[in-house]
Amino acid sequence: MRQYEMAELAWQGEEPEGSWADVCLDAVFSCGGWEKAVRGFYAGNGIYKVRFLPERAGKYFWRVTGEIEAEGEAVCEPACCGVWYAGEDPHSGGRPSDRENRCREEMQYDREKCCGGERQYSGGSQYGAEYRKAVSSGSDSRTLRALEGAGHGPVRACGRHFMYEDGTRYTPVGTTVYALAHQPEALIRRTLKTLSEAPFNKVRYCIFPKSYDYNHNEPELFAFHRKPDGTWDVNRPCMEFWEHFERIITELDKMGIQSDLILFHPYDRWGFAELSMEENRIYLDYLLRRLAAFPSVWWSMANEYDLMFQRGISDWYELEEYIAAHDPYGHLLSNHQCIVAYDFGRKNVTHCCLQLRDVNRAKEFSEKYQKPVIYDELAYEGNLPLDWGNISGFELADRLWSLYAQGAYGTHGEVFLSDDEVLWWAKGGILKGESPARIAFLKTVLQEADGPLEAWNLLEFAEPGEGFSVADMLRGVRKDNPLAELYYFGEGPEKDGMFRSPEYAGRYGTQFFLRYFGRTCPGLTTLYLPEDRSYQVEVIDIWEMTKTRAYFGASGKTRIRLPGKEGIAVLATAL
Amino acid sequence: MRQYEMAELAWQGEEPEGSWADVCLDAVFSCGGWEKAVRGFYAGNGIYKVRFLPERAGKYFWRVTGEIEAEGEAVCEPACCGVWYAGEDPHSGGRPSDRENRCREEMQYDREKCCGGERQYSGGSQYGAEYRKAVSSGSDSRTLRALEGAGHGPVRACGRHFMYEDGTRYTPVGTTVYALAHQPEALIRRTLKTLSEAPFNKVRYCIFPKSYDYNHNEPELFAFHRKPDGTWDVNRPCMEFWEHFERIITELDKMGIQSDLILFHPYDRWGFAELSMEENRIYLDYLLRRLAAFPSVWWSMANEYDLMFQRGISDWYELEEYIAAHDPYGHLLSNHQCIVAYDFGRKNVTHCCLQLRDVNRAKEFSEKYQKPVIYDELAYEGNLPLDWGNISGFELADRLWSLYAQGAYGTHGEVFLSDDEVLWWAKGGILKGESPARIAFLKTVLQEADGPLEAWNLLEFAEPGEGFSVADMLRGVRKDNPLAELYYFGEGPEKDGMFRSPEYAGRYGTQFFLRYFGRTCPGLTTLYLPEDRSYQVEVIDIWEMTKTRAYFGASGKTRIRLPGKEGIAVLATAL
Repeated sequence: MRQYEMAELAWQGEEPEGSWADVCLDAVFSCGGWEKAVRGFYAGNGIYKVRFLPERAGKYFWRVTGEIEAEGEAVCEPACCGVWYAGEDPHSGGRPSDRENRCREEMQYDREKCCGGERQYSGGSQYGAEYRKAVSSGSDSRTLRALEGAGHGPVRACGRHFMYEDGTRYTPVGTTVYALAHQPEALIRRTLKTLSEAPFNKVRYCIFPKSYDYNHNEPELFAFHRKPDGTWDVNRPCMEFWEHFERIITELDKMGIQSDLILFHPYDRWGFAELSMEENRIYLDYLLRRLAAFPSVWWSMANEYDLMFQRGISDWYELEEYIAAHDPYGHLLSNHQCIVAYDFGRKNVTHCCLQLRDVNRAKEFSEKYQKPVIYDELAYEGNLPLDWGNISGFELADRLWSLYAQGAYGTHGEVFLSDDEVLWWAKGGILKGESPARIAFLKTVLQEADGPLEAWNLLEFAEPGEGFSVADMLRGVRKDNPLAELYYFGEGPEKDGMFRSPEYAGRYGTQFFLRYFGRTCPGLTTLYLPEDRSYQVEVIDIWEMTKTRAYFGASGKTRIRLPGKEGIAVLATAL
Repeated sequence: MRQYEMAELAWQGEEPEGSWADVCLDAVFSCGGWEKAVRGFYAGNGIYKVRFLPERAGKYFWRVTGEIEAEGEAVCEPACCGVWYAGEDPHSGGRPSDRENRCREEMQYDREKCCGGERQYSGGSQYGAEYRKAVSSGSDSRTLRALEGAGHGPVRACGRHFMYEDGTRYTPVGTTVYALAHQPEALIRRTLKTLSEAPFNKVRYCIFPKSYDYNHNEPELFAFHRKPDGTWDVNRPCMEFWEHFERIITELDKMGIQSDLILFHPYDRWGFAELSMEENRIYLDYLLRRLAAFPSVWWSMANEYDLMFQRGISDWYELEEYIAAHDPYGHLLSNHQCIVAYDFGRKNVTHCCLQLRDVNRAKEFSEKYQKPVIYDELAYEGNLPLDWGNISGFELADRLWSLYAQGAYGTHGEVFLSDDEVLWWAKGGILKGESPARIAFLKTVLQEADGPLEAWNLLEFAEPGEGFSVADMLRGVRKDNPLAELYYFGEGPEKDGMFRSPEYAGRYGTQFFLRYFGRTCPGLTTLYLPEDRSYQVEVIDIWEMTKTRAYFGASGKTRIRLPGKEGIAVLATAL
């Protein structure tokens, strides 16, 4: 087995007598004093499996108890470790580069702190002592097969950004294909082919099928079998479905694409949204046993959790805690809202997952929660009659540039009216819009930074006295001047926006400075760059996807002529 | 003299011994039991004048007392009265058309209520009894000369819209040339020529010169002469300045352009912003004596009143009340802010004058104050480095369409970087931008309506059951569902925007329906038109300035294919 790649142990046994979901199968993997408990699952046809994701290289001893009793050892080789963000071939292999190590150091990467180190898997003890013995076909000692390719481990939140477990930077550039897994195989193939050529490295998609406008087709497979009364039997997972679903996760992972899995959602005509909390727990338990060892999965607790009217907030906290307690790897975890944002301050929540159109609020969430901010839904490129689905390609590109330039993130989606009702956002297929090319271009620009962007206060490197201070301006003001009253005692939108223009500007240390001007059209701007470094300054047209050099060797206060149109950015990179 | 046109009486006398501003010269004009008191002013070179704006036709008796003592009579002929908004020639003459009368009736136009009827001029009594006799050259009886052209009288606020005194609809389509009057004569000529070919019917400009970025030139004339110590002597008005200023008002009026006069502003290097309140009153008194009889003037108390830090809100209320009390004609009166909107609910304030970029807040002001809403500053088309001055022509056209479609109003401005520092917004000159042509097109579209637009609830004419209700949706919801909590108990931006998309839609009765889609790009929309009338439906491209007929004879629920791009509107007009 190889580091950061899922390893799987399988045994032939008897079909469980009771639940196929809640089987007793606990495993412990230990390596040099380090130990991890995981649980196995019933995979159908009398096969029991234990999946494990080795987070470190070395020699592992494992022991499985429960339905199966077995033990053995496995050698885990270090995964290859390319640094794609630095513009190198992700499959070039080798140890982290100097650049990456610097990045890691500067981000003060602390595995224990950032990567769920505090979240301990609770183990299988809660399932009581009544372990049933099953026939084991496993030998005592074997080396697990190595999966193809090599990975970086799960993505972790680190500060306001993301990083793979191995320290490689991860910049989420996602898209949305909600019902990806519930389409005919040919369409899924088509979608995966499109994704192989697209800029995206994360896809949001659902476990349960979706019933909604433009989502009328009946899937072939569901997560469970039905009871005789037609309701779902969460204790009888449909193995074909899960195998099918896992193939998609795996294929995406091979393309470097994370699977942001939506575990619940309200758009349902089959009854999945009506499962009881007990059924939800059984479903989640089985899902976590099967999927948690996939390095590329994220848990998006719901799409529009607040539209599931049969659920209260206490249910969501319970589900959140259940997931966190039963995921041995601490995968990324968040919850997506329609209107009321989830409480991203909760300990188990790793990042802010937002449905929000106003890119000017990224700072609010970023500062409040000190976690990464992803606008996972900011309206889709397309031409639907509904305003969540009819922004232009330019508008979507504009929103994404606005977010990324601040060090926040956003997710693509596409909904063009189509006679065959195959809209990308729901079913995949092909991309028709104008934004993906611009998103690819954005990605290449961001790759020039040696690390993730933090918000750049545009006057940070200016001489004292540059810029504007409301307090200075108000010196000597009359006390009943309305502006002074607002400034000193007021609140509300006028106070919040007082002399403050939206700024889409970020920097990585003093190496990379990016400012995006959005829909404004300045013909001239001034950058305040550090005096002690020399920069190449380029003017970027986000729509034409061009970069035009304005300076080679600029420092300090730098005036730049701009084309005076929408969609312009300036980029300064240290020479 | 003619109805709605300024009449002027003049006498040669002696130079006033004291103040040239605060001279004693009171006049009373009476006509069929109706009486109006006005005040005269000293015009320099021993000339005293009384200006009067006859608001009704008939035979007037007038009597002047004070510096001058004289009386006489004057015949006032009815002004010609075209109805430009109905697409007819404004100079075609004739009585109000049926269409106009209908409009007047439907708007429940009540002169006493809408047009400042409650605001009574306080007369000259406050100036004491010490009238000094001066030599009068006036004869006892003469007919005043008739000015060229014919007018409609002052513009009045009526409900949330505007109307000339004679009942003709007025749709403000303004522009901004702050320092128009403080430029060299050749440039002023150039500006007026530009305006003669532009779509604008209102210009915002200042009495006092402006000192600001791109506003560095020294004007030739100022409103007052200086004292020996260099400070301004408000008691010595500079007659040349006022005559110059009045020529501009008159020339604009001849072109059908209202003068929205800015009486104070903070951008000053000469000391006008530092005048004492007593000096301000003397200045306003003189200004009102001279200018109030011009039918086309509006009083914009300030530009960015809240940036005048030496003034408190009580000062502004005092100035507002002073203006209202000393203006015999009740001209439109408002105040323009930088950050803190003025209290438009005050009795003397006729309309909301806003600096605001968010077109989605028009409804808030309209509903709160039930007065007309003008976004007099919503950022300017141009390419300045500052974000109040660098929106694209499309963005400006988009904001204006968004406002007008709701029945609100907005004002154009333009700031393109230029080596000669002649930026339209400050100095006039020529227009370089792309928005004016689109504004002209907007104006022609609005002229197809028989009256002003009120907000159109898009489901107003839909069958019951169409559309969406949050309350219905939440039926049976769990009490601790976060959306239900927000809906029933919450507040804040999420509550305000709950399932609410910006709607830019207005109608005039059932004759005219306009919906603008802004930056959204629907490929399809549904209009709910009245069942009992038949409509022509057109798809408008605001940028290409095209109208494409979609239906001739549509009624009720009407599905319309749209081009799926930004800047599209649909228009339904009754056949």
